[in-house]
Parts: sequence; structure tokens; C-alpha cells
Amino acid sequence: MQFAQIDGKYIIKIERGELVVETVTNFCRDQKILNGTFTGIGAVDRLTCGYYELKEKKYYFTDYDSMIEVVSLTGNVVLKEDKPFVHVHGVFTDTKNQAFGGHIDEMRVGVVLEVIFTPLSSNITRVLDEDIGLALLDLPCQGHK
Amino acid sequence: MQFAQIDGKYIIKIERGELVVETVTNFCRDQKILNGTFTGIGAVDRLTCGYYELKEKKYYFTDYDSMIEVVSLTGNVVLKEDKPFVHVHGVFTDTKNQAFGGHIDEMRVGVVLEVIFTPLSSNITRVLDEDIGLALLDLPCQGHK
Amino acid sequence: MQFAQIDGKYIIKIERGELVVETVTNFCRDQKILNGTFTGIGAVDRLTCGYYELKEKKYYFTDYDSMIEVVSLTGNVVLKEDKPFVHVHGVFTDTKNQAFGGHIDEMRVGVVLEVIFTPLSSNITRVLDEDIGLALLDLPCQGHK
Repeated sequence: MQFAQIDGKYIIKIERGELVVETVTNFCRDQKILNGTFTGIGAVDRLTCGYYELKEKKYYFTDYDSMIEVVSLTGNVVLKEDKPFVHVHGVFTDTKNQAFGGHIDEMRVGVVLEVIFTPLSSNITRVLDEDIGLALLDLPCQGHK
Repeated sequence: MQFAQIDGKYIIKIERGELVVETVTNFCRDQKILNGTFTGIGAVDRLTCGYYELKEKKYYFTDYDSMIEVVSLTGNVVLKEDKPFVHVHGVFTDTKNQAFGGHIDEMRVGVVLEVIFTPLSSNITRVLDEDIGLALLDLPCQGHK
Repeated sequence: MQFAQIDGKYIIKIERGELVVETVTNFCRDQKILNGTFTGIGAVDRLTCGYYELKEKKYYFTDYDSMIEVVSLTGNVVLKEDKPFVHVHGVFTDTKNQAFGGHIDEMRVGVVLEVIFTPLSSNITRVLDEDIGLALLDLPCQGHK
């Protein structure tokens, strides 16, 4: 992977063969980034994504292993058990241009992935929500109903 | 809903059972935000979305009421009749990871929705375009053809 | 097209009948923007998009010419042969709300397209990668493996 830091953002190029969630997680660790948000476009050749089944409190993932365009990637990084944790959803298209996607477990770059990453100077943390079964954002301000 | 303000942005957590367009609209009203832009990921369990039919100058909406991953949410807030007005499009995936979506009328959070909101210090307004049949952005600068 | 400059960002309205890649490219040229990133939502009535076939080092595009919602647009601008070059992927939905998309060759606005554009003060350039067959981002910093 390669990157550049500009105007408080990072442009990141994740290269063919590299794992995306792992690479972004390691990048945050190396750059001492605790929180951030990112988008991305590119193509992957291996992908595991799916959905959360609230009743069973578990994810159901499907594996894909052909070349797939990454048409939308939206993610955030906050702390989970004191480490930067990546939460990312994606939309993908196949060779018929049909779209699919979901919550991304992991994916491997097939051509290239171009990411715009905006670090945030906070230390927001995920905390387990027992009812939901997931570690949710723990934020200081309460909105009105 | 909960939120945090960091580096001129807001991280917002919209919680299970809350309506998204209503919550973002009320958030802007409460925080005295006139303009802004946002992205989001999460899951909803009720959704009304669709498309605009230009010839008839009306939206056609479809209702969905199962658990749906929100894989991409892209929206903006500008003034319409002096109040913050949310315009948001979304991509969603079902339990087969198939993607669908459109212009969002409203949706209800099913698990959680994580939003990154960037306020803008302008007071851009939507003005009705008679030919299009919609209130479009009224912007001060004209681009070259 | 119309635009406004706010807080270091641009809000751009691309109008019915205008080509999107051409308009963003000309906008960057006119505003002397070398690098940037953008998102967008709206509707188009003509679209050419597809995917990159790595083995053959070529894009396969499909043409669409009905009204299509633009539900997610994610793009960047960097230099290619000394000129601002737009790389943009999109997700679209049809009148059944089904999603499709890919790498965008060009598209024409059918109703309106609302773009949030963030200029970057860098001069990052694309350089041909012989193995990939595409001009990829050339970035100064190398990440750890």
C-alpha cells in the first residue's frame, strides 16, 4: 500500500493482493489514528460480505472469488477494546453490472483500491450493546426524541 | 440518537426504532445547522424508497418491511421554505446480498445507523424548478458550458 | 451547471442534459483544481458504465438510455498527463429499485445531479502500471506490509 497526507486527509492506494480491512487497520495502528472515516472505489478478486441477523445475533457471510468492481465503500474507524476497529459496508458489481454487497468481513484487492481517509481527533469507542449483540458507538451527547 | 462533535464534523448514532429522515431533520433544527452533507451505514427494518418520474413529475415509492443492510447512504441538507430539508439516496442489500435502493422517503433503524455529518456554514436554499417539478439547489456561481 | 464554494468545499449542481465526467473535468480546469474527491446523488437518462477485465487489460462497457436514479457516486480527481482526470464509480437504480453500476465512462443528467466536491491542495499524478494496464495513483509514502 502507498499513501499521501493532504489537507488533513489521506489518499491511500491498496494494491493487488492486499487485504483491505487488515490494511486499513494496520494503517491506523502505524499512523496512531484512533478514529476516522473513509470511502473507496476499485476492484477486488476475493470478498466475504453479508448481513446481520438480529434475532440470532450473528452475521451471515457469503464468499465471492471472481473479479468484482467496488462501486461504493463507506467505512468508519473507532476504538474497540482499545484498538482501531474498521466497520465498513460495500456495494459491488459483477460482469453483468448487477449490484450486490453488505457488511464486509474482508476482501482482497484485485486491481487496485483507492481510499480517501479522514482521520478524526477523537477517541470514540465501541461498547457491547447486549440487546443488539454488537459493539455500538458510545457517544457523549444525547439527541432530543 | 446520540452524537459527538469532532473536528467540525458530527458522528451520529441513530438507534433501533428511530426514523432516519426525521431524526436528521430534527438534529439540524436543534443544532441550528442550515446546510450539510452526510454518509451512513447500518441496518433498517422499514424503508420507503423509489424514483422520480419526470414526465409525471412525481415519485413512485415502494415499501419494504424486513431487515435490510444499509450499504451506502449519501445525503445533503439545504433549506427549503426556510427549514433544513434532507435529500438522501441509499443502497440496500437483502439476505441474498442483492442490492436495491433509490430516493429515500423515510426509513426506520433496525439495528443501528452510523452517520458522519459535515455541517456547512452556508444558507443554500432549494427553489422550485417548474420544468423539473422539484425544488432544486439555487447556487450563486454559473459554470462555463 | 451551477456551484457554490463553502468551507473549502464546492456544492455543484449539474443540470439536465449536461455530461457529468465532462462537466467535473471542465470545472476542475476552470477552477485550477488539480486533485479532489467527490460524492453525488441525482438522476441520469444516459449512462455508459462497466468493469475492467484485468486479463485483457480493457474495460467492458454497457450503455443505458432510460431514466435512472444515481444512488451513490464516489469519485476522485488526480492528474493524468498533466490534466485533471476524473475516476468515478456509481450505483444506479431502475424503476424496480434494482441496483446496478460500475466504473463510469460517461453519463448525462436526466433530472439533476447534486455533487459535493472537496478540492485537495496536492498534485498527485496517475502513472501507467504495466502489469495492471491502468494509470494508478503514484503516492509518496510506502505502508508497512
